[in-house]
Amino acid sequence: MEIKFYENIMKANDNIANNIRKLLDSKGIFAVNFISSPGSGKTTFLEALIPILISKNIKVGVIEGDLATTNDALRISKFNIPVIQINTGSGCHLDANMISKPVEDIIKNEINILIIENVGNLVCPTGFYLGENIKIGMISVPEGDDKPIKYPLIFNVAKAIILNKIDLIQYTNFDIKKFYDYCRKLSPSIKIFEVSATKNIGVDEFAEWLLEIYARAR
Amino acid sequence: MEIKFYENIMKANDNIANNIRKLLDSKGIFAVNFISSPGSGKTTFLEALIPILISKNIKVGVIEGDLATTNDALRISKFNIPVIQINTGSGCHLDANMISKPVEDIIKNEINILIIENVGNLVCPTGFYLGENIKIGMISVPEGDDKPIKYPLIFNVAKAIILNKIDLIQYTNFDIKKFYDYCRKLSPSIKIFEVSATKNIGVDEFAEWLLEIYARAR
Repeated sequence: MEIKFYENIMKANDNIANNIRKLLDSKGIFAVNFISSPGSGKTTFLEALIPILISKNIKVGVIEGDLATTNDALRISKFNIPVIQINTGSGCHLDANMISKPVEDIIKNEINILIIENVGNLVCPTGFYLGENIKIGMISVPEGDDKPIKYPLIFNVAKAIILNKIDLIQYTNFDIKKFYDYCRKLSPSIKIFEVSATKNIGVDEFAEWLLEIYARAR
Repeated sequence: MEIKFYENIMKANDNIANNIRKLLDSKGIFAVNFISSPGSGKTTFLEALIPILISKNIKVGVIEGDLATTNDALRISKFNIPVIQINTGSGCHLDANMISKPVEDIIKNEINILIIENVGNLVCPTGFYLGENIKIGMISVPEGDDKPIKYPLIFNVAKAIILNKIDLIQYTNFDIKKFYDYCRKLSPSIKIFEVSATKNIGVDEFAEWLLEIYARAR
């Protein structure tokens, strides 16, 4: 009974997500779903990424998922782009139903890339398709080089991993060779970007890669 | 129907957890449930805490929850104390049913304090009672001073918050006054410990506090 119930939930989610994807495709909008633990630096990374995308004449919209507060949406709104905050209360991830109406609303604006910043959680969001073109996982240096093997789910679904807070590596015992080995073992072809969102290191490289994928998807 | 199903799950969990608690109480064992995001430093903190407890003649047992690997149990096993690893696969938290048999097994050893290190996740584990006496939340400095207001659930259930990696504060923009203000707004009486598990700062103070609560509970 439990399994049946779970299957029904996932089927309902995927049906809605497929409709979201069709809608986005029909408008030529490319959607990216960002997943990480709380405090890995997703919003700070977006604050570095979005100006680069804007400078390349890409119109960006953002959906922010958080348990509480509109802080992240406020931080993004300074770029004068469409942004919608979803507060999940105690919900540990976004699902397709939650973002369905916000997607309809946000694409009333003309956008090329829709960024979805998921609730901070390295586990639960990995299982929920939202209609995105790609998922991106983020892990930050202070979390430790062992995170890939301890939280392997994100490697099943992400196209790339952003290793954020690389500027802090000298103050930690993070072994970058070990980190790469773990990542490659889980997903041999996964792209890894070494980034410091606060120091603006590596964000350009990620933007270039994203725009390549976006161009190919059109 | 969804709500009914959820209620049934939680009721089943709480029934099992209540039985676990009765069993632990009958043996005079005090149980602590540690909750944090991945990589906040729960295991490293336990590696600093356990030798202190041992030096005070406290017998400690540990249950480790992780999606994958037995790495954390291996790290704890060097103290030559009973430790059991639970791998949840894709499960984002421990529930009472998962730990029921491990608890029965671990208390075949004579222990005074049972430490349960939950799966790394600041959201889902907060909702599941495991029969513990207290929950402890951990947030690390690199995660940011805004974590309390963005992940308030842990403040509903935790007796104390460990602010770990305090040695990294000088390399970040973490505002400690803001952090305390947010914490106190959510839970005015919550204990906060500033700790660096790797530099062994503040672990003694936590151990002292824990032993006081343990003594009071006996």
